[in-house]
Amino acid sequence: MYVIGERINGMFQDVRKAIKKHDQNIVQELARKQAQAGASALDLNVGPASADAVGAMLWLAETVRAVSDLPLCIDSPKFEVQKKVVPQVPGQKIINSSKADDEELEKFVALAVEHHAGLVGLTIDQGGVPANAEKRVELGAMIASKAQEKGLPMERLFIDPIILPVNVAPQQPGNVLLALAQLRLLADPPPHLVLGLSNVSQNCSNRELVNRTYLVMALAAGMDSAIMDPLDTELMNAAITTDLLQGKTIYCDSFLDAQRMRR
Amino acid sequence: MYVIGERINGMFQDVRKAIKKHDQNIVQELARKQAQAGASALDLNVGPASADAVGAMLWLAETVRAVSDLPLCIDSPKFEVQKKVVPQVPGQKIINSSKADDEELEKFVALAVEHHAGLVGLTIDQGGVPANAEKRVELGAMIASKAQEKGLPMERLFIDPIILPVNVAPQQPGNVLLALAQLRLLADPPPHLVLGLSNVSQNCSNRELVNRTYLVMALAAGMDSAIMDPLDTELMNAAITTDLLQGKTIYCDSFLDAQRMRR
Repeated sequence: MYVIGERINGMFQDVRKAIKKHDQNIVQELARKQAQAGASALDLNVGPASADAVGAMLWLAETVRAVSDLPLCIDSPKFEVQKKVVPQVPGQKIINSSKADDEELEKFVALAVEHHAGLVGLTIDQGGVPANAEKRVELGAMIASKAQEKGLPMERLFIDPIILPVNVAPQQPGNVLLALAQLRLLADPPPHLVLGLSNVSQNCSNRELVNRTYLVMALAAGMDSAIMDPLDTELMNAAITTDLLQGKTIYCDSFLDAQRMRR
Repeated sequence: MYVIGERINGMFQDVRKAIKKHDQNIVQELARKQAQAGASALDLNVGPASADAVGAMLWLAETVRAVSDLPLCIDSPKFEVQKKVVPQVPGQKIINSSKADDEELEKFVALAVEHHAGLVGLTIDQGGVPANAEKRVELGAMIASKAQEKGLPMERLFIDPIILPVNVAPQQPGNVLLALAQLRLLADPPPHLVLGLSNVSQNCSNRELVNRTYLVMALAAGMDSAIMDPLDTELMNAAITTDLLQGKTIYCDSFLDAQRMRR
């Protein structure tokens, strides 16, 4: 699976401080550690408190790019931020994210096409997060068709059907699994399907157990990517073992180490 | 999910010895522990070495029934054994198992109907274990239709699409998941779908990780029961958390303890 490392996010105190003080070490250490643990890409999020979102994001991108060639996932819902940051980030990048609003999506897709970037499209419209699977699939189809129309290949499109915490929305994890199974059939090859995994366990007890259990369920339903914590060893073990049991990798006695080294 | 505890099996040395010496304590302790850990039923298997299979099975059933009201899963492929044991086991019982052979299946279904027992039907015919999902579904449909024809309700039928070790048959775990998703649509209400879970990790390293990862994948695909080890705490945690994330139970901060106590 395609693991997008979630740890460089101003929501976390260590990263918030590092951004404030322009402390490269903390951020670069998180980049290295996540790559070693098997991340395929690194999410960069300046967090809610940053006054200069563009400046902070550019600093993050430059700091991480100095130690890692992994694709960088520029995490901001604001087109004004993306428009200024994306052209200045060298190497592979993913724009994260656009809602399924016709006008907004058109701008985001154009930006992704122009800069050869990936794009995460959220199945959210003016009505907010859909309550059922059907509406998620409808919005996902709308995102995929806009991408195809504008020349963004499915290999660079990530559709995120939005997972809500199981303690506030008990039926939503099941609905998202149904949506994933259907979204997978949208195109051939299909777009990537991604979730912000940790959200499923927000304010729950046994968060790591809930995260890794839902990861396996979502992968079994057709998801192939997640924004998640590669430093959670048990979570990565679950991801690697799911790949094995889906026949995507071949068994050897050291399959856990072998897959970590391969990444 | 419906957990059938696997531990009372002559394959395990402690149980083999207990059967030989008629040592009730060991067997009754395993029955109690599995029930406390959340087993919904208890599998009884005398193991390959027992000379008097009927006598050993009757002793096991009597020994366990003295301390547990749980359904007992009489685990022997031999109709001659089942025919003699099943009528003598008080309380709820499940006959485990018949192959999908027309003549054999007819006898097993009749025995289950006569004694108000459940029945596990394996998707194996004279060709052995199917190499693909389609044949598993075909044999599962044959089992379900025989049960319906003879008056065995789907609530008492368990179809087992047979999981093979991932290290010898790398594509089989994926095929079984496809089969589960289709077998679930066989009837409404559907038959139970079950696997002998531990077989997926036979002779593998990281067995417990492989078992619990495949358990979650199979439950997500539509399985609702497994013959497995309820004394593996992480495995039971995965089962309970999957039920939660499928919306079958409701979140509370102590959801793990709450579900164990409920059983």
